[in-house]
Amino acid sequence: MATDKGERRPRARDLGIPFSGPTGPDNAITDVAGIAVGHATLIAGDGPLVVGQGPVRTGVTAILPRAAEAGPPAPVWAGMFSFNGAGELTGSHFVAEYGWFLGPICLTGTHNVGAAHQASLDWFLARHGAAMGPGFWHLPIVGETWDGFLNDSHGGHLKAAHVRAALDAAAGGSVAEGAVGGGTGMSCYQFKAGIGTASRRVEAAGRWTVGALVQANFGRREELRIFGRPYRQAARDADPKPGEGSIIGIVATDAPLLPHQLQRLAKRAAVGMARTGTSGNNGSGDIFLAFSTANPLPLDAARGVTALDHLPNEQLNPVFAGAADAVEEAILNAIVAADTMVGRDGNRVEGIDVEAVAAMF
Amino acid sequence: MATDKGERRPRARDLGIPFSGPTGPDNAITDVAGIAVGHATLIAGDGPLVVGQGPVRTGVTAILPRAAEAGPPAPVWAGMFSFNGAGELTGSHFVAEYGWFLGPICLTGTHNVGAAHQASLDWFLARHGAAMGPGFWHLPIVGETWDGFLNDSHGGHLKAAHVRAALDAAAGGSVAEGAVGGGTGMSCYQFKAGIGTASRRVEAAGRWTVGALVQANFGRREELRIFGRPYRQAARDADPKPGEGSIIGIVATDAPLLPHQLQRLAKRAAVGMARTGTSGNNGSGDIFLAFSTANPLPLDAARGVTALDHLPNEQLNPVFAGAADAVEEAILNAIVAADTMVGRDGNRVEGIDVEAVAAMF
Amino acid sequence: MATDKGERRPRARDLGIPFSGPTGPDNAITDVAGIAVGHATLIAGDGPLVVGQGPVRTGVTAILPRAAEAGPPAPVWAGMFSFNGAGELTGSHFVAEYGWFLGPICLTGTHNVGAAHQASLDWFLARHGAAMGPGFWHLPIVGETWDGFLNDSHGGHLKAAHVRAALDAAAGGSVAEGAVGGGTGMSCYQFKAGIGTASRRVEAAGRWTVGALVQANFGRREELRIFGRPYRQAARDADPKPGEGSIIGIVATDAPLLPHQLQRLAKRAAVGMARTGTSGNNGSGDIFLAFSTANPLPLDAARGVTALDHLPNEQLNPVFAGAADAVEEAILNAIVAADTMVGRDGNRVEGIDVEAVAAMF
Amino acid sequence: MATDKGERRPRARDLGIPFSGPTGPDNAITDVAGIAVGHATLIAGDGPLVVGQGPVRTGVTAILPRAAEAGPPAPVWAGMFSFNGAGELTGSHFVAEYGWFLGPICLTGTHNVGAAHQASLDWFLARHGAAMGPGFWHLPIVGETWDGFLNDSHGGHLKAAHVRAALDAAAGGSVAEGAVGGGTGMSCYQFKAGIGTASRRVEAAGRWTVGALVQANFGRREELRIFGRPYRQAARDADPKPGEGSIIGIVATDAPLLPHQLQRLAKRAAVGMARTGTSGNNGSGDIFLAFSTANPLPLDAARGVTALDHLPNEQLNPVFAGAADAVEEAILNAIVAADTMVGRDGNRVEGIDVEAVAAMF
Repeated sequence: MATDKGERRPRARDLGIPFSGPTGPDNAITDVAGIAVGHATLIAGDGPLVVGQGPVRTGVTAILPRAAEAGPPAPVWAGMFSFNGAGELTGSHFVAEYGWFLGPICLTGTHNVGAAHQASLDWFLARHGAAMGPGFWHLPIVGETWDGFLNDSHGGHLKAAHVRAALDAAAGGSVAEGAVGGGTGMSCYQFKAGIGTASRRVEAAGRWTVGALVQANFGRREELRIFGRPYRQAARDADPKPGEGSIIGIVATDAPLLPHQLQRLAKRAAVGMARTGTSGNNGSGDIFLAFSTANPLPLDAARGVTALDHLPNEQLNPVFAGAADAVEEAILNAIVAADTMVGRDGNRVEGIDVEAVAAMF
Repeated sequence: MATDKGERRPRARDLGIPFSGPTGPDNAITDVAGIAVGHATLIAGDGPLVVGQGPVRTGVTAILPRAAEAGPPAPVWAGMFSFNGAGELTGSHFVAEYGWFLGPICLTGTHNVGAAHQASLDWFLARHGAAMGPGFWHLPIVGETWDGFLNDSHGGHLKAAHVRAALDAAAGGSVAEGAVGGGTGMSCYQFKAGIGTASRRVEAAGRWTVGALVQANFGRREELRIFGRPYRQAARDADPKPGEGSIIGIVATDAPLLPHQLQRLAKRAAVGMARTGTSGNNGSGDIFLAFSTANPLPLDAARGVTALDHLPNEQLNPVFAGAADAVEEAILNAIVAADTMVGRDGNRVEGIDVEAVAAMF
Repeated sequence: MATDKGERRPRARDLGIPFSGPTGPDNAITDVAGIAVGHATLIAGDGPLVVGQGPVRTGVTAILPRAAEAGPPAPVWAGMFSFNGAGELTGSHFVAEYGWFLGPICLTGTHNVGAAHQASLDWFLARHGAAMGPGFWHLPIVGETWDGFLNDSHGGHLKAAHVRAALDAAAGGSVAEGAVGGGTGMSCYQFKAGIGTASRRVEAAGRWTVGALVQANFGRREELRIFGRPYRQAARDADPKPGEGSIIGIVATDAPLLPHQLQRLAKRAAVGMARTGTSGNNGSGDIFLAFSTANPLPLDAARGVTALDHLPNEQLNPVFAGAADAVEEAILNAIVAADTMVGRDGNRVEGIDVEAVAAMF
Repeated sequence: MATDKGERRPRARDLGIPFSGPTGPDNAITDVAGIAVGHATLIAGDGPLVVGQGPVRTGVTAILPRAAEAGPPAPVWAGMFSFNGAGELTGSHFVAEYGWFLGPICLTGTHNVGAAHQASLDWFLARHGAAMGPGFWHLPIVGETWDGFLNDSHGGHLKAAHVRAALDAAAGGSVAEGAVGGGTGMSCYQFKAGIGTASRRVEAAGRWTVGALVQANFGRREELRIFGRPYRQAARDADPKPGEGSIIGIVATDAPLLPHQLQRLAKRAAVGMARTGTSGNNGSGDIFLAFSTANPLPLDAARGVTALDHLPNEQLNPVFAGAADAVEEAILNAIVAADTMVGRDGNRVEGIDVEAVAAMF
C-alpha cells in the first residue's frame, strides 16, 4: 500500500479499523449539503533552509459553509471550544458573541495567518462588497497549526493568490487528505499527517449528517492509540520536536442546533481527539469550531422576530457521538493519507506504515 | 421596622432622578407577565452576638419565573454572567450548558445557601415530584450576598419553613423593596439596602418588557454615583467593613431571546451596576442571570424539532439598554427603600438621606 | 453488601490492565501529601419506593485538601473545567474568580447538595468560626451526581450528621472505592460504580504527585472502552435509564501550578473520561476541579507582595499526562470496585464481571 | 479651544472634569515603565469613494510592552475580557491558555487586521527570528475597530511598511491622541475620536502604575455621559450609522498580578467604558486586554520552578479602581483630542465642542 510510486494511499477505514456508524457518501465534511472544500498546496525546494527562499512545504485549505450562496451572504450558526488554546482561530470573539459567522474558513500554517486573513477578506469583498456597500465589514475565520519543522515558516511563502486559488477551487464531493492544503507541512503523533475528514449519518428526531475536517498536527508518537490500541512501533527518526503541534477541527451539521448547542458539539471534537491518545500537550493549539447550515437567514438588519427550527437538548446524544466519531476518524485519515515527507534542512517525517496499522485489526 | 414613623419610603424615581425610558405598571420585575416574587424576612433580637441565638437580620426572596404553571414544569431560557465571582449562584453550570433552567430562584444570605437550596428543591418536588416520577432530578438556583455585619450569619437562622413561606407568598404586582427577604441584612455603598426592582418597556421589532430585581450589597460609600453624580455626603459611621459585599441581579424579559443572547443581556446588568459608581471590589460576588419567558416548552424528553421565536441580534440594542437602565434603577431603589438598621453587636447601617438625594436633582 | 462472599474486589490494575506510569504508594488522591478522604454510606431498606422512607442508597464523600491545617485556614490554588455542565459544583464562581478555595469538597447525590452544603459550612465554622470572627464567610464546594435509579432521591435521607461523619472520618492512606460515600447509588456505563481514585508520580522539573478521585455515574454500556478496548459484553438488564448520569472529578497535585494552569489541568480530566469511551451525554454533569497544595498561604487580608513557586507551562506535559492517566484509572477503579446492587423498586445495577475484564488483557 | 487653526486640542482633564486619583507623569500608558507607543497615520484624498483609491482615513497604533528588551523576548503576563465580542483581538486563545503573550500589540481598522498581523509577525521575526531559530513561532496580537464611515475600508490601504513604521516609531513619553494611528478614522458616541490614553498611580501594598490606551469607536450620541453627566447637545449631523463601532482597550500595570488577576483587571476596563454611558451596542466589539510587566522571564524552555512576585487578591481594589478610572479618562481623551474630520463621500464626523464640555464642570 505504500505510495512512493504515486499510488493513492488508503483511508483509515480501508485498513479494517472498526469505526462505528454509517458515513455519508464521501465520508467527508462535504456530505453536509452545501459545504465545499478547496486546497492550495505549496511544495518547492529541498535542502538547507534559506529564510525567504525555502524549502517550502505549506498551503491553505478553504471550507465554504454555503458554497452556492447567491444574493446577500447568509451566516451559519456556530459555537467554538478551545481545548488548549496555544494557537489561533480568528473570528472566535465574534462567534462567541453573535452565535454565527459569515464566509469561508481558512486553515493554514501558523505564520500564514495574516496573509490568509487578508486574502480571505479580499476574496469575500470581491464577491459581496459592492452589493453590501462600503459600510459592510467582515471578520474572517482563519485557523493555524505549525509547519515549521518541514517548511521555511519564517519565509512568508503563502501569498494572496494561493488563498484565492484554494477558495476558488472549493467544491463538494470527495476531499483530498494528508499533505495537502493547510496540512502540507503538518505531522501528527510525529507521523506525517495533514488534512483529514469524515462524516456520520445520525438519527436524532430526524436524519442528520455530521461532518468533520481536521488539520492534524499534534501529539507525540508514544501517545498514539488507533481506535483505542497503542501503536507500538518504535520511533525511528531523530525528530527534534514536532510533537508540540496543534489541531484545528471543524465540525459541520445540518441538524438545527442553536449556538449554545454548537458550543457543546465543538466540545465533542475534543473527545475524538482524546481517543487518539494525546492528553493535550502544552504547546498545542487544539481549537474546535462547530457550525450548522440549518436555519439559513441571509443578512438583513431589518429582520424582526423569526421562527427557527430547534433540535432540543434531549435529542443530542447521537449528534454528539457522531461528532466525536467523525473527528476521531478524520484524525486517523489525516495520518493514514500522508506519505513520508522531507522538508527544510533535510528534516524528515515518516508516513505511518499502513500495513502495520492494518495488521492491528 | 419600616421607617421610623412607619411611613413608606419613596422609590428612587420619586426623588426626581431623571431615569430614562417608560417603565411597566409596577416598575418591577413582575411587569414581565407570569413572574411572581415573594419574601420571607427574619428580624429578631438586639445587642451582642451569641452565635445561634442572634440578633437575626436575614431572609430569603423567591422569584418564580412561571408562577402560574400547571402540568409539567416549563423551563425558561437563560444566560448568565459573572462580573466578579466572589459569590455563589447555584445552577450556573446547568444554565451555561442547557441554556435554560427550571423552577424558582432564591436569593438569600451567604450562609443560608444550603438551607435555601434544600428547601427550594423540596418545595419543587412537592409540586412536581409525584407527577414527574422518581427519576426526576432538579438543580435549584440560589444566589447569595453577605449579611454578616448585621446578622448572626454563623447561626443558621434561615430554615426550610422560611423558604417555603417566601415561595408560597410569591405573587405578581408590586414588590416590597429594601430590607426585606434576602435583602434584610444587606448594605450597598455602605448605606442600608437590600432588594430593589425596576422595569422598562422597550420597542425592538415588537414591544417587550425587561425587568430586573437585585439583591444589592456592594460598594464603598465614596464610590457611589446617583445617576452619574457623586454622592458627596461624608461617611458618618465607623463601618468595620461592609464594603466588600456583592450583588445578585436577575434580569427577565418576554422578548424571545436565545441562550447566547441572554448571556449578552446578563452582561448589561453589569453596566447598570457600573453606572452606580463601583469599579467592582475584590470580595464582591457580582453575578447576573437573565432569562426569557418566551418560547415556553414544558419538559418533554420526546420532543423533536420545534419552532422557536427568535429576535435577531440586530434588534437587541433597545433590550440591552432596558436591562442596563432597569438594573441601575433597581439598585438605587434598593438603597432608597431601606431605613437605617441596627443589628448584631449594635452594628448600625444608615439609610440614605432621601431628601439629600432629592436635592441633587 | 460488600461482595457476594464478602471478599474485597480487586482494583482495575490488579486485572492486568496495562496502565502507564508509576503510582503513589496507595494509588489514590491521598498520595498527595496532606489530603484526607472520608465516606459516609447510607444503605437501608429494600422493595418498593415510599418517598421519604426509602429504600436508601446514598451517601457523601469528603475530601480535605489540607487535613492537618491548624490556625487560620489556608486556601488551595484551584482551577475548574465543565465539560458538560448538566450538574452542580458549588463554589465554581469563586474558584474561577479568586483562583483558590478553602475547606472541604463534598461529593454526594444530586438532591443532597443543599444538605451537604449547609453541613459542610457548619462543620467548617465549628472549626474556624470563632477564631475568624463573625465577619468570616465561606462558600463550600459540593459536587453531585444522580443516584435516583437505586435511591429514594426525593426522600431527603442525607442529614447533617452524615456529612459531619464523613468529614470527621477523613484520613490519609488507602481510600475505599465503589459503592461507598457519595458513590453509593451510582452507576457508570450502566454498571454499578461509585467512587474511584488513582495517582501518578511525574517528573517535570521536579518530582510531583498527581492524584484523582472521581464520583463516576456516566455513560451507556455500548460506549465503554477499557484502556481503549470495547467491552463487548451484552447488556443483560432492562435498565430504564441510568445512562444519563454524570461525573465529578477532582485532580490534586503538589506541583506549584498557578490558577490558570490548574484550569488547564482540570481539562485533562476530561481526556481521562473520554478514553473510557463516552462522547459525553447530554444530561451528564461532567465537571472537574483541580487544585494544588503548593504555595500554602494562610488567610491574611494584610499580606502584601508574596513570592510564589511557579512551574512554567513548558514543563507541564508530564503533569497533564498524569492527570489524564489518573482519572482514566480512577474511573475504571470506580467500576471494578463495585458489586451488583439492588435498590428502590427492585432496580438492579450489575457489577462488572471482573474476570471478563481480566480476560481482555 | 477649537483647533480648526491647527492648535493642539486640550486633554479631557484640562477641561475641568474632576477625575480622581493621581496620574503618572504623562497621564499615559507609557507611564508604566518600559512601554512604548507608536502611530502610523494615513490620511489621503477627498470626495467620492473609489474602492482601492480612497479617500483614506486609517492607520495603526503599536504598543510595545517591553520596548527595550534585548536577548530572547520576554513575555508579559496577561488576561483578557470580551464585554461584547463583535470584533477581533487576535492572540486571545493564546493569552487565555498560557497567561502571557509576546511581542507588540497592534490596533488598527477592521479590514487591516490581516496586513497588520503579517507585518507585526515579520517585524518580530526580523528582530528575533535568527536568534530563536526556525522552530520559533509567534502569534501576534492585533485588535481592530471599524473605520469604514470615513475610510475606504474595502480598499486595503494599510501596508506592511506602515505597520513597520508604527512599530519602529514606538517610544515612551507622551502619546499622541485622537485621530492618529489606529484611531485615525474612528468615532465615539458619534463624535470624532480615536486613540486615548491615561494612567493612575495606586497604592496597594506597594506603589504601582496602571495605564490604559483605547481605540475608541463606540456608542450613540444620546448615550454619552461625561464623568456621569449626560452630554445634552443635540445631534447635528445626519450620521448614517457610525454608532455601532467598538472599543479595544489595553490596560497595563507594573503590579505583579497573575494571569487570573489580569483577567479580573481587564473586566474593570468595561467599567470605565460603562461610565461613559453606553449600555454596549450589539455590533460593538468591546474587547479588553490587561498585562503586567512584572515578573519578567525571558523565554527559556528549560526553566524549572521559578519564584514569582504575587500581589494577593485582597490588595487589588486600588488597582481595579485605577484601571476603571484610567479607561474612563482615556475614552474621554480620545474624544476630546479629535477634530472634526471629513472622509469618503463627504462623510463628516464632528469633533466635540470642548468649550461646551468645559462649561459642564
